[in-house]
Amino acid sequence: MILTVTLNTALDITYRVRSLRPHASHRVSEVIERPGGKGVNVGRVLAALGHEVTVTGFAGGGTGRAVRDRLAGTRGLTDALVAVAGATRRTVAVVDEHSGDTTQLNEPGPQIAPAEWGMFLDRYEGLLAGASAVALCGSLPPGVPVGAYAGLVRTARSFGVPVLLDTSGEPLRRGVAARPDIIKPNADELAELTGSHDPLRATRDARRRGAHAVVASLGPDGLLAATPDGHWQATPPARVHGNPTGAGDSAVAALLSGLVERLPWPDRLSRAVALSAATVRAPAAGEFDPAVYEELRARVPVTTVLSAP
Amino acid sequence: MILTVTLNTALDITYRVRSLRPHASHRVSEVIERPGGKGVNVGRVLAALGHEVTVTGFAGGGTGRAVRDRLAGTRGLTDALVAVAGATRRTVAVVDEHSGDTTQLNEPGPQIAPAEWGMFLDRYEGLLAGASAVALCGSLPPGVPVGAYAGLVRTARSFGVPVLLDTSGEPLRRGVAARPDIIKPNADELAELTGSHDPLRATRDARRRGAHAVVASLGPDGLLAATPDGHWQATPPARVHGNPTGAGDSAVAALLSGLVERLPWPDRLSRAVALSAATVRAPAAGEFDPAVYEELRARVPVTTVLSAP
Repeated sequence: MILTVTLNTALDITYRVRSLRPHASHRVSEVIERPGGKGVNVGRVLAALGHEVTVTGFAGGGTGRAVRDRLAGTRGLTDALVAVAGATRRTVAVVDEHSGDTTQLNEPGPQIAPAEWGMFLDRYEGLLAGASAVALCGSLPPGVPVGAYAGLVRTARSFGVPVLLDTSGEPLRRGVAARPDIIKPNADELAELTGSHDPLRATRDARRRGAHAVVASLGPDGLLAATPDGHWQATPPARVHGNPTGAGDSAVAALLSGLVERLPWPDRLSRAVALSAATVRAPAAGEFDPAVYEELRARVPVTTVLSAP
Repeated sequence: MILTVTLNTALDITYRVRSLRPHASHRVSEVIERPGGKGVNVGRVLAALGHEVTVTGFAGGGTGRAVRDRLAGTRGLTDALVAVAGATRRTVAVVDEHSGDTTQLNEPGPQIAPAEWGMFLDRYEGLLAGASAVALCGSLPPGVPVGAYAGLVRTARSFGVPVLLDTSGEPLRRGVAARPDIIKPNADELAELTGSHDPLRATRDARRRGAHAVVASLGPDGLLAATPDGHWQATPPARVHGNPTGAGDSAVAALLSGLVERLPWPDRLSRAVALSAATVRAPAAGEFDPAVYEELRARVPVTTVLSAP
């Protein structure tokens, strides 16, 4: 079983409007709701790839119930979320039909009480005992200590479970120091962590800070990986048009599946790039197109990056 | 008991953001949820004024449960909403802290099945038997016939219950023809109904179309009333600054309370203007400031409008 942790789960709501104009009133023509939060998205993609996956973290209130109701229908996915008193946050993506652009509104998430955090830690240890890998994903809700991921990384390592960390800012900085097996920052997160806007330099720097492997997602330029086995860049075979929402979560799911299948790094990277591209191309945000995935998988070029001195 | 009908109830969500920029991502700093839909708002104001009020209409899904949970704590208010399979809509008001302006996103509402509409009609007749007045408020959810309000007006009249209609567009046009006791359009709704942008001419025209009394809300210019007893204008004693959300619903509540207390028209109008102003001045949208209301009530000038030939 692969475990994903989403401390700040979300009910992701997408609104379609004709044209978003600040200070005006808008009739929403279409409403889509789906369970969200990075680790939940990663879990759904893993389940779609045929893995057994367990999602944990927090859920509460009517929005938490909506998230859990929707997860209940996902084959291969087990809901091990911890119930909390506060309500799971909503995210609202407003898609402008005229321009095609999206405006995002993200609620902060519920206040997590110390007792609830303690309940989660118990649940996490119990689940680690049966996990082949664990992904720690996304932002921290109010009340969770900023060093939370560092502690969760250490616990996973003490259980001998490989751990992937996908977060940003101070939680990432502290988490990296606890020596996770993989981090997957995007270009901005990597620059914030290392102070360098040169991805090659920054990935090497992030390894020195404690990450065993660093896979940087560079949007249309694909993935740049710095690992103990070598350095690679994997790029989409063609420019991919569509909605990039969820592409990063699909990359995380591919890296985890490649990890538990013990694939060599180049194969993990081509899988991650193909799955990300198939997610961008899918009509619904966060879904992926299986035909596009299969078609691209063999066609992603992975090149060795020479390690500069 | 005063009855209010809200066919398209809502969970009203207010987001505070630093500055709303289309196509950017925003962190919401504050989330406020309250039960909404015009008739629900009218009912809450009536309850706060000390009236026994029953609210009916439709509610469903997790959002409907959130609305009903919040109504359960309102003293003097009875929840007689009809449960439906679809989910009650959300409205999202995004308040820009920088400019103070609000951007509104309104979901369309659940699809109402014919059997659910039939259940509502039964409920409505049962409630009319004990009602001293009824208000029919707001938009129609999908599936409810566009002539719905016309039918509900006729049913109320057959029960001898005075009926106030507060809606817009085609549902208003058809509802007016069924001869409601009062309509309360704003300037835009009145112009759309009558084709005239001259409020005096338009209020008279709306009476000819079937409304016994027309009370037009003209924003900072107060209320203009055309009734069988005469024509009046009531204006706020001073320019009122604040949030106008809910001011129209407070005016409807005041007109209903004045109706059941058999107040003369000028007293109903001064009450409506004072309560609207106290709503604009309250810090939270849709609430009213009781001290401001009491202070203004005696100071609203009501002038007779000479009926032009």
